[in-house]
Amino acid sequence: MSDRRWMAAAIALGERGRGRTAPNPNVGCILVRDGRVVGRGWTQPGGRPHAEAMALAQAGEAARGATAYVSLEPCAHPSPRGPACAPTLAKTGIARAVIALTDPDPRTNGRGIALLRDSGIEVVSGIGAAEARASMSGFLSRIALNRPQVTLKLATSLDGCIARANGESRWITGAPARAHAHLERARHDAILVGRGTFEADRPQLDVRLEGLRDRSPQRLLLSGTVAPPPGWRVLPDPAAVVGLEQTNHLLIEGGAKTASAFLAADLVDRMLLYRAPILIGDGRHALGDIGLAHLADAHGRWRLTDTRMLGSDRMESYERVRG
Amino acid sequence: MSDRRWMAAAIALGERGRGRTAPNPNVGCILVRDGRVVGRGWTQPGGRPHAEAMALAQAGEAARGATAYVSLEPCAHPSPRGPACAPTLAKTGIARAVIALTDPDPRTNGRGIALLRDSGIEVVSGIGAAEARASMSGFLSRIALNRPQVTLKLATSLDGCIARANGESRWITGAPARAHAHLERARHDAILVGRGTFEADRPQLDVRLEGLRDRSPQRLLLSGTVAPPPGWRVLPDPAAVVGLEQTNHLLIEGGAKTASAFLAADLVDRMLLYRAPILIGDGRHALGDIGLAHLADAHGRWRLTDTRMLGSDRMESYERVRG
Repeated sequence: MSDRRWMAAAIALGERGRGRTAPNPNVGCILVRDGRVVGRGWTQPGGRPHAEAMALAQAGEAARGATAYVSLEPCAHPSPRGPACAPTLAKTGIARAVIALTDPDPRTNGRGIALLRDSGIEVVSGIGAAEARASMSGFLSRIALNRPQVTLKLATSLDGCIARANGESRWITGAPARAHAHLERARHDAILVGRGTFEADRPQLDVRLEGLRDRSPQRLLLSGTVAPPPGWRVLPDPAAVVGLEQTNHLLIEGGAKTASAFLAADLVDRMLLYRAPILIGDGRHALGDIGLAHLADAHGRWRLTDTRMLGSDRMESYERVRG
Repeated sequence: MSDRRWMAAAIALGERGRGRTAPNPNVGCILVRDGRVVGRGWTQPGGRPHAEAMALAQAGEAARGATAYVSLEPCAHPSPRGPACAPTLAKTGIARAVIALTDPDPRTNGRGIALLRDSGIEVVSGIGAAEARASMSGFLSRIALNRPQVTLKLATSLDGCIARANGESRWITGAPARAHAHLERARHDAILVGRGTFEADRPQLDVRLEGLRDRSPQRLLLSGTVAPPPGWRVLPDPAAVVGLEQTNHLLIEGGAKTASAFLAADLVDRMLLYRAPILIGDGRHALGDIGLAHLADAHGRWRLTDTRMLGSDRMESYERVRG
């Protein structure tokens, strides 16, 4: 198996932690010796142990001479919460390290790779970089922009309605699409709704999938005036996502006013659209004013990154094109 | 090549006539002898000559002993506009006829096949029936329902808008999607718009594609009160499509009120959606009231039959599920 395929497996392990590792990145690590996996790890809930520490603990002596596939550069800075991974990897005697991304955290940022090389370990970097970037997009957003990656979820009819005029919205999409949406909840640290949705639905926002119930995200309410209900935090306005703690990945679930406020502030990085093959007509529309001045300005902002059928519904994922 | 593949070629020839053969069906015909095509035909504009007559004229003496692939049962009834095809085929000495669909026109309806068999010709029917039914859907609708097949075209943003609030709608979709929409115009006998669209845009509704400019459909205006402008016909209300003459395929191009009126009357058989990867927000929505009483009633009515990317836009074709 090539470096690229082992790295894909390491990134897939890192996905297991996604939504629970903030403020740390959701890293994955595989240790391979003589073509066999001797250790596997991923960042644990709360961010510790790191992926490398978990994989090394599993491998024990077998790590000696192995190749470590890590989706992010091993950390070089000591922390009160645990030892740094780069020196630990060096000490265990691995022969080679394959790394997808350099850690943009200024405390590491190349120092982990330098430390490994100085210890005589062969280092290859950049393998699977695009996939690793997509997987750790939330952490990368926090480091680059000091805010989580923001995903807007919309479930609509073919004509762009999220409910009938009287508010009836159960159900627009079918069971497979709704299950997929719950899986996406599990991949986010926090979910936000607006006050209208909160008051109308009192939503649980939990992950209602067997085996993933403990992965329900934090709940955030967008409101400038309301005190946080028990079990909720309050975000006074969209701009307050900047500096939001313990959150790499934020999911916005409704309603139209909240979605529009985030879009108007250009704070949506990703859209997750579920579209059912139905027509509603004069229903409630997915969006209100998003501050569009000219039609030409609407073009070139969104790039389709994934699409699939979920039962008779179509899922589409779009990414904001920036810069 | 198998019967199925020759029939697919015959149906493809029949597509050349689509939108110009009303009140006749857009039939295709291929004559094959010893594995070689000796004649090809399709229903000519206005409905005559028929596909079989054109193919036979091309084949001449070579038709003797050939297999005729015809997408619809050859007609058995004489007409002042030309001879019946079944007896003509029998006279030319073809050995075999492969037919996709029995002609539901009560004047033929099995009599063409019986006549061929009585003449000692081997007849196989039902090959490629589904594809032939899709190709001649307009004619079949006219015979079964006494009205054209009605296709609703919508070009929207991801959030279901057909224009900004001020009416700006050029352009939502890109050049490839707009070219596809013009190709669809060429496949329809008539295009209808509502009074609002007519007065705001004075649309040409012509086919602006090189080589297809002569295929521009008739223009219909939905209005109970206005006299037909020069070059237009007036339809007083959606129900007036019943009995509409010279029209197998009718395309509805706008606006929201017209689209909603046809949907509310359950007179739309097919939807052709073009969707651009843009957001508009508080724009004009694709539909108004379509008479939906419960969300559950919206489900199970539309079946996706085709989808493809056209540049960065997605085209989707849906068919009304009836009965």
